[in-house]
Amino acid sequence: MNTTAVNTTPGALMLAEIREQPDVLARQLDTELERIRSVAAHLRAARPTTVLLAARGTSDHAAIYAKYLIETTLGLPCGLASMSTFTAYRAQARYENTLWIAISQSGGSPDLIQSTQRAAHCGATTLAITNSPDSPLASTSQMSISIEAGTERAVAATKSYTASLQAIWLLVDLWSGGDGSAARTLTDHMRRQVDRDDVLEVASRYRFIDRVITVGRGFSYPTAREGALKMMETSYVGAQAFSGADLLHGPVAMVDTACPVLVVGAAGMTADLLAPVVDRLHDRGADICVVGPPSVQARLPAAIRLLTPEGVDERLAPIVQIVPLQVLARQMATDRGHDPDQPRGLSKATSTR
Amino acid sequence: MNTTAVNTTPGALMLAEIREQPDVLARQLDTELERIRSVAAHLRAARPTTVLLAARGTSDHAAIYAKYLIETTLGLPCGLASMSTFTAYRAQARYENTLWIAISQSGGSPDLIQSTQRAAHCGATTLAITNSPDSPLASTSQMSISIEAGTERAVAATKSYTASLQAIWLLVDLWSGGDGSAARTLTDHMRRQVDRDDVLEVASRYRFIDRVITVGRGFSYPTAREGALKMMETSYVGAQAFSGADLLHGPVAMVDTACPVLVVGAAGMTADLLAPVVDRLHDRGADICVVGPPSVQARLPAAIRLLTPEGVDERLAPIVQIVPLQVLARQMATDRGHDPDQPRGLSKATSTR
Repeated sequence: MNTTAVNTTPGALMLAEIREQPDVLARQLDTELERIRSVAAHLRAARPTTVLLAARGTSDHAAIYAKYLIETTLGLPCGLASMSTFTAYRAQARYENTLWIAISQSGGSPDLIQSTQRAAHCGATTLAITNSPDSPLASTSQMSISIEAGTERAVAATKSYTASLQAIWLLVDLWSGGDGSAARTLTDHMRRQVDRDDVLEVASRYRFIDRVITVGRGFSYPTAREGALKMMETSYVGAQAFSGADLLHGPVAMVDTACPVLVVGAAGMTADLLAPVVDRLHDRGADICVVGPPSVQARLPAAIRLLTPEGVDERLAPIVQIVPLQVLARQMATDRGHDPDQPRGLSKATSTR
Repeated sequence: MNTTAVNTTPGALMLAEIREQPDVLARQLDTELERIRSVAAHLRAARPTTVLLAARGTSDHAAIYAKYLIETTLGLPCGLASMSTFTAYRAQARYENTLWIAISQSGGSPDLIQSTQRAAHCGATTLAITNSPDSPLASTSQMSISIEAGTERAVAATKSYTASLQAIWLLVDLWSGGDGSAARTLTDHMRRQVDRDDVLEVASRYRFIDRVITVGRGFSYPTAREGALKMMETSYVGAQAFSGADLLHGPVAMVDTACPVLVVGAAGMTADLLAPVVDRLHDRGADICVVGPPSVQARLPAAIRLLTPEGVDERLAPIVQIVPLQVLARQMATDRGHDPDQPRGLSKATSTR
């Protein structure tokens, strides 16, 4: 039976879920847009003055994306929540004009549920973004959005990440007065990303690495973070993600000819900010792979490249650019004889306090 | 001449500055307390409802410390600023009730100066915490605090880090109605930390590592981050820092018997939150070193340990606990034949955009 085959081929689940992403994004637009519109309308009326984002793992990278999007689109001060402030230190907070957004695929981690309840108790408006609309996190939040990614079976999250990003983009676009229509261009771009052979060359070059550094800036930084996490959890590589500026403030010293660097390029001003970082990495002899569209590749010289489509809005690009890194992580894992559907030491839903 | 000797022995500058820390903390208390008190009084009157912290490198870890301290002591929503929001995306922000705190040893990095100016333009109250009271960052900010660490010559920051932490602790303690006197206990604790032989055992065990993971939680998380940075920039080790909870959400898969883990323990509830993390690390066969006082060591079983003093308030402990990691990073670097005073590819003041 097909189901059995899917369960026994290493990485088959992860690959199937990577390929499912264009359909997931299209379906979410069809079924969830009105729900997201009503949440956006509520937020326009509530006029929060501050936004806090609570999440862990892959969802934490969706939270970093949300932070850039909210700051640049809505101009609100925005931060990533430290859950231990509530779970370890029982803080009394003044959150009267604060929007607390909790992002979680499973909606089940106790620290996220407890800190969301505490945030509400301290006056925050709470919103859950989950793949589990009946989860404790969704139930305990005042509002919730379902990302509608469908059941995710591979331990390494893929479709729930891009579905979270699109839901966040839609929310912020509608909140700021847009109509969400630009997301309709994503599905076609995604279809061209999910099956690609150029990843094989990078996977082959990275066959025996023990460490890798990923670099982004602004909207490409969450992609660098999520790409690093995929490699850590499927290929057991010591993958470290940095913002290009933070890398130069110390960590660049550890870069040498034996340490590959994967630079996630983005268009516009971000490419300008990454250019001096790439220069410094070349000075250190790094083997560089640039992920990005042809126009960015032309500005960031590299030994190898992973092309992504030209002309995608920089705020939507993270949804497209993560795909080659998902495919790469799966390929590296299976090349090394690991099963990225069942990484050692991990289970699908992680409970932390 | 002595000066020449200091300049030619690898790591001599860094060691001298590590040893200087007790005196730096005492001097700051003597000369800066009144200045910090007047800033605190201004903030009590201004009543900001949100705090953003802007910093890079070592100062970014001081910012993470400030975030926990402000959240748990003052209950204000608090976040780390993304400078590219201004430098790359030219965002228009609504910062009327926001306090923007910029932390920098040199006070000279263009991104920090530009984003602080933009934050003020968008309505924020701006405060600089620097080791250079005449720097462009201090001059452009509405208020400034000098950490009075004296000239820091080693590229790897040590005394400017602990001096920043103490200045932040004093500010928050005075802001919340305290008298800052608890900091007076730090100097004695620090004197017992700066010269210690137990670090030699850990440095010897880590002589040939290529990667290391550091773990903290809550107030011990900035110590894990700063310890990792010290090892990256002086010993060129791929050091990755995680909050204990974030580690379990994926990255723990890469931990194996070849990857040492350094756990920065803290007292109270934080030790409870780290105990299940240490259990999971043992399941993965990790070689664990715990940094912490005897009571915490008793709860977190490990192969080796770095003892820190018992009874230090958890909010002040990060100032004391970073010291053995500074000493360790310097020892590892010199054991490997590197000069931590002049790491490859780095200069003392880093300019990023």
